[in-house]
Amino acid sequence: MNIILSRDSQLRVMENTVANAEKYFGQFCSLLASYTRKTARLRDKADQLVKQLIDFANTETPELRATVRDFAEDLAKVQDYRQAEVERLETKVINPLKLYGAQIKQTRTEIKKLKRVQNNEIKQLEKLEKLRQKSPSDRQMISQAETSVQRASADASRTTRQLEETVDAFQRQKLQDLQKIFSDFVTIEMVFHAKAVEVYSSAFQTLENYDPERDLQDFRAKMKGVYGRHTAQPLADSNPPPPVPWPLASQSAPSATREQRTDEEVSGDSSVEEAPVEDIRGQGLHT
Amino acid sequence: MNIILSRDSQLRVMENTVANAEKYFGQFCSLLASYTRKTARLRDKADQLVKQLIDFANTETPELRATVRDFAEDLAKVQDYRQAEVERLETKVINPLKLYGAQIKQTRTEIKKLKRVQNNEIKQLEKLEKLRQKSPSDRQMISQAETSVQRASADASRTTRQLEETVDAFQRQKLQDLQKIFSDFVTIEMVFHAKAVEVYSSAFQTLENYDPERDLQDFRAKMKGVYGRHTAQPLADSNPPPPVPWPLASQSAPSATREQRTDEEVSGDSSVEEAPVEDIRGQGLHT
Repeated sequence: MNIILSRDSQLRVMENTVANAEKYFGQFCSLLASYTRKTARLRDKADQLVKQLIDFANTETPELRATVRDFAEDLAKVQDYRQAEVERLETKVINPLKLYGAQIKQTRTEIKKLKRVQNNEIKQLEKLEKLRQKSPSDRQMISQAETSVQRASADASRTTRQLEETVDAFQRQKLQDLQKIFSDFVTIEMVFHAKAVEVYSSAFQTLENYDPERDLQDFRAKMKGVYGRHTAQPLADSNPPPPVPWPLASQSAPSATREQRTDEEVSGDSSVEEAPVEDIRGQGLHT
Repeated sequence: MNIILSRDSQLRVMENTVANAEKYFGQFCSLLASYTRKTARLRDKADQLVKQLIDFANTETPELRATVRDFAEDLAKVQDYRQAEVERLETKVINPLKLYGAQIKQTRTEIKKLKRVQNNEIKQLEKLEKLRQKSPSDRQMISQAETSVQRASADASRTTRQLEETVDAFQRQKLQDLQKIFSDFVTIEMVFHAKAVEVYSSAFQTLENYDPERDLQDFRAKMKGVYGRHTAQPLADSNPPPPVPWPLASQSAPSATREQRTDEEVSGDSSVEEAPVEDIRGQGLHT
């Protein structure tokens, strides 16, 4: 019975190998699919931000409009790379892991076949033992049973060897696939992150180069422009204003918590009336 | 009435400026908060993958175990950087945008105050007009009404000037904050992506250096070891195996869709019996 016990142990090693692969590769597949979906949702959210930034840009003065649009375009570019990341993860990581599931199923089927063959061997052996005990003199029957046992053993031996080869190949494939799939995962992620660094570097420059002062001048022109056209005879403008009784809101809370990028006082530019207010408004939005 | 119409127009420009900022900064805030939450979910999903990879590593042969663990550690490192990204986005992007909401509210309050002052001016002017029509001879009443109008006008004029300064400062702060917040966003993202590239480069090397052959030998030792201990007298091993009647599962579907990293035939190493099977199993898991 040693050979049978041995085959049974070996079968259990094979079953464990395949069951373990099934369990973990299944989890890898579902986790990576979920990871990919969450990446897609991050892309969607950033796309919404891009849309809002463009809408916002269209309501703003030209310098800011150009800056925010450039920034939005860079942000959109990162999402394009993220989209490529999502597609590549699906093609080169999730699909191979799914295919792997099919392969596992096939190996399982072969293991089941071996189990049947092994059970038959045991059955024939038991039959032979019974015959030997009940009818030890029935040479013909015993000889027939011995032949059956030999045939079943040969079957089991052959099937075991085939399965050994199958599981060996399965394991080799598993190790290679694991290496390939996770290398592909890492490559896909690396390419995406590298592209993102590149695009964000340009976005940073765009934002760094933005000078709010010109927009402030435009804004003042817009405010004063409206005011200026109607102030031929100001009623009370010659009275000096009394001291301001409440603190100016804009100088309170937030500024205390942030670094100030520019500390220069905004100059009270008197040429604001000449700023191209109508030009600003008249410009198309080009989106 | 020109001055009043003018102030009314100016007020509307101010109201629009603040309402526009409120609308878009509110959307930026909620979109970026959502973006940050989705990033956190991506981190969670990758953390789960790390956990499964370590569990899996613990069930595998030493080479693969070390490789998968190293890979899992790198993946975990990326998640640590993602966590830092999430925290920085909250501190340097979302919180300032939230603070901005408070500032907008304060400016809104000041605009409302100006509206009341302007309405009072109009009321006083209407009163004066009525008096002039109804009692053109009542000098004293008219004089009193004129003084009220002048006072209301002076009030409106002073409040308008204060508000102009407030809205000017508000706009300057808005432009600077916009630049600062989005620059911070870009910097945070850039740092994260750069770190990810760095870590994934090392992870790629880890996976690249992995050689499945040694693990395959270990695996065979495990399989044959179990088999070998009990095959002192094999029953049917001397019979040559018949031709394999079905294709080996492991050589079918998946391999057709993947590059093969190594094409060398696995050598039928006869020294497997000496492989340190027990050592492999005996090793602690160090996690």
